[in-house]
Amino acid sequence: MLRPLAAEAFGTFWLVFGGCGSAVLAAAFPDVGIGLLGVSLAFGLTVLTMAYAVGGISGGHFNPAVSLGLALAGRFEMRNLIPYWVAQVVGAVAAAVVLYVIVSGKADFAGVGGFASNGYGAASPGGFNLTSALVIEVVLTAFFLIVILGATAKGVPAGFAPIAIGLCLTLIHLVSIPVTNTSVNPARSTGVALFADGPALAQLWLFWIAPLAGAALGAVLWRALFADD
Amino acid sequence: MLRPLAAEAFGTFWLVFGGCGSAVLAAAFPDVGIGLLGVSLAFGLTVLTMAYAVGGISGGHFNPAVSLGLALAGRFEMRNLIPYWVAQVVGAVAAAVVLYVIVSGKADFAGVGGFASNGYGAASPGGFNLTSALVIEVVLTAFFLIVILGATAKGVPAGFAPIAIGLCLTLIHLVSIPVTNTSVNPARSTGVALFADGPALAQLWLFWIAPLAGAALGAVLWRALFADD
Amino acid sequence: MLRPLAAEAFGTFWLVFGGCGSAVLAAAFPDVGIGLLGVSLAFGLTVLTMAYAVGGISGGHFNPAVSLGLALAGRFEMRNLIPYWVAQVVGAVAAAVVLYVIVSGKADFAGVGGFASNGYGAASPGGFNLTSALVIEVVLTAFFLIVILGATAKGVPAGFAPIAIGLCLTLIHLVSIPVTNTSVNPARSTGVALFADGPALAQLWLFWIAPLAGAALGAVLWRALFADD
Amino acid sequence: MLRPLAAEAFGTFWLVFGGCGSAVLAAAFPDVGIGLLGVSLAFGLTVLTMAYAVGGISGGHFNPAVSLGLALAGRFEMRNLIPYWVAQVVGAVAAAVVLYVIVSGKADFAGVGGFASNGYGAASPGGFNLTSALVIEVVLTAFFLIVILGATAKGVPAGFAPIAIGLCLTLIHLVSIPVTNTSVNPARSTGVALFADGPALAQLWLFWIAPLAGAALGAVLWRALFADD
Repeated sequence: MLRPLAAEAFGTFWLVFGGCGSAVLAAAFPDVGIGLLGVSLAFGLTVLTMAYAVGGISGGHFNPAVSLGLALAGRFEMRNLIPYWVAQVVGAVAAAVVLYVIVSGKADFAGVGGFASNGYGAASPGGFNLTSALVIEVVLTAFFLIVILGATAKGVPAGFAPIAIGLCLTLIHLVSIPVTNTSVNPARSTGVALFADGPALAQLWLFWIAPLAGAALGAVLWRALFADD
Repeated sequence: MLRPLAAEAFGTFWLVFGGCGSAVLAAAFPDVGIGLLGVSLAFGLTVLTMAYAVGGISGGHFNPAVSLGLALAGRFEMRNLIPYWVAQVVGAVAAAVVLYVIVSGKADFAGVGGFASNGYGAASPGGFNLTSALVIEVVLTAFFLIVILGATAKGVPAGFAPIAIGLCLTLIHLVSIPVTNTSVNPARSTGVALFADGPALAQLWLFWIAPLAGAALGAVLWRALFADD
Repeated sequence: MLRPLAAEAFGTFWLVFGGCGSAVLAAAFPDVGIGLLGVSLAFGLTVLTMAYAVGGISGGHFNPAVSLGLALAGRFEMRNLIPYWVAQVVGAVAAAVVLYVIVSGKADFAGVGGFASNGYGAASPGGFNLTSALVIEVVLTAFFLIVILGATAKGVPAGFAPIAIGLCLTLIHLVSIPVTNTSVNPARSTGVALFADGPALAQLWLFWIAPLAGAALGAVLWRALFADD
Repeated sequence: MLRPLAAEAFGTFWLVFGGCGSAVLAAAFPDVGIGLLGVSLAFGLTVLTMAYAVGGISGGHFNPAVSLGLALAGRFEMRNLIPYWVAQVVGAVAAAVVLYVIVSGKADFAGVGGFASNGYGAASPGGFNLTSALVIEVVLTAFFLIVILGATAKGVPAGFAPIAIGLCLTLIHLVSIPVTNTSVNPARSTGVALFADGPALAQLWLFWIAPLAGAALGAVLWRALFADD
């Protein structure tokens, strides 16, 4: 059990360090910054790369909502859910700590600000309300699970799943950063919320509830409509 | 028949929600917006991801013009054409509804505007006339079908088709968003036209006729020049 | 022989229509234009998509320099070289014609300007002289051939070559658009030079000589250093 | 032994010429420049393309830190380490020479400036101190090795490793260009430092020590946590 839990912790570390790190360090770099497109690509590539690296060890969830959805779809043992969640949150928090150390070494450092945390209402990048945030997180996480379940189903050509799943996370960010800064992943939200200025910690409940509900919805839809096993 | 129709409805939902959603929500986000490049990538990734997820169930058309072209090329049964079209349009309209709900939750919401709809003349993003719009939609849809038919032909290595087809849709958008906002897909055009301000509904006829004609042209060219069966 | 020549003509059409089309129509679109990054991606995706579609029919060269290099490396019959070159140039010119029709339908059309043509000196986007243009075209085409020869060598996993080769063309454009607007392909240069304002036609000789020399160099280096057959 | 050393020299040439070349020539091109996102993509694509082309010949390291990490993980013979390092540095320096020739042909050439070299403190693009630079280079190189070791492990589907590894390098650049201009590769740092204005040569020690330490850390972590051989 050590190997898969280490894989989940390292994978989630990489997701937060690469995804949130690109947002904090490079998104708004003057004149040549990578913007929301670069951040979207970074989040997707964290999953693509670690899914190839350690996906065979742990399944490559790196996300409590994904673990729940896979368990509900019968692809993952429910008794492993809580250990996976703990490993994922530990990895996410560790990534936020290391990112904090790096950011604080900037010459004009004056606090981490939002620190790539998720939010709604006044904390939404584009000023979207709670309903918009809830709907988009549920819908996107549901489709994320459908893509994951479909791309890893029996009979699908082996080896392509990390591309489909990683680039699905990129797509999800291309759509929703302006609304919630994009969670679909409670561990990712938790890691940076612990250090962010503003209401991130007070709003963290939504970024557990909405992704978990969306993942459950995706798993149920998959079993009802698409599964043939 | 339920499974493939559900796959087409969900796939087309994802295409409109992801593609048009990225355009409406993120393209022009101040300073760090994803621009037309990000929107082009988003459209392509909707097809790439859902083709891996449910392509084995329905063929992964998500587009009435693709279904027509495949039928004319002998790869899809003509009697399934209308059910597929209905499922695709239903999915597209549902996506537009959900997107409308999300957009209307923006603090400074004042109508959806163009809502990523397609247009020509004054409704063309770059002010291109009807002839330009017709020509580019026909040419791009014809090549889209050639790429689809070629990438899914016998003897081509299995598993790569969603990459080729999804990134072909990205390429199509990279070229033609300034001309028509890029359709090549009547269902995608219909879904958002129902909610858009401006002449989108009045111009919708073109975005059925041109993609369908282009798809037919592509299928005919494929059979005449490239097919070996 | 009809099928491979048609494949080369259609593939080179797509390369010029998609690559130069994205440059002319979308690169500098106000505020949300795709920029040189989007153009680079578009060129690469034209090759990626058509190599999957018709690569099995013609080899998927779409470029006179590639045909020459493959012939010199013993991978393509020299007696087919001229027919391939003719098909490629015909496809490129046809694409430029269709692109001209579309561009001329813009409300404020006032000539095509550079029309994505290649140039050096005053016609270089960044003002680079003949020596810089010559060196970069030779070096990039040589490496293009090395990547093509390597990615299609025996023993390399089947199916990945269009990804490697298409994205190599993207990389080549990321580096060199500011220097020559990037040719590495005499057919692409010829197609648009016929319609461009400025010295494109007078400078076209360089964009035949340099890519052909670079392709020959790449083929020779491959055979001397890397080939094991 | 000539073939693998030539492969490493050519591969590292391509990495520096393509990656640093895109940064120097195209990143800040007025209005339509490729930005840090384009540079990140370029670096990754140099490795993706040459790994497909010559990865079967040399392993496709193109990086002294990667060679060290693979040796420590038991995947590469330690006695070949120094020859590989020499070939990699030779390739990197040659690329910098050719790039210098091209850049010096610009009409308004006035020195190469930073020449895409790496730095910390006042030489960090975003003004990050030595500690930030050290931490991020160590962490990113460690994960780079974990991805490389995982994506090339037995049982992982063949052929995908160049995608995972190349896009991992893209991700690494998306995160860290603002901090150190991104090294994770001592040969890349050395090639351009020889020609750069400013303190690049005086700071070069860090961009040997940190990537090598990070690669060693990644190899040790892999063996301790993930290896099953």
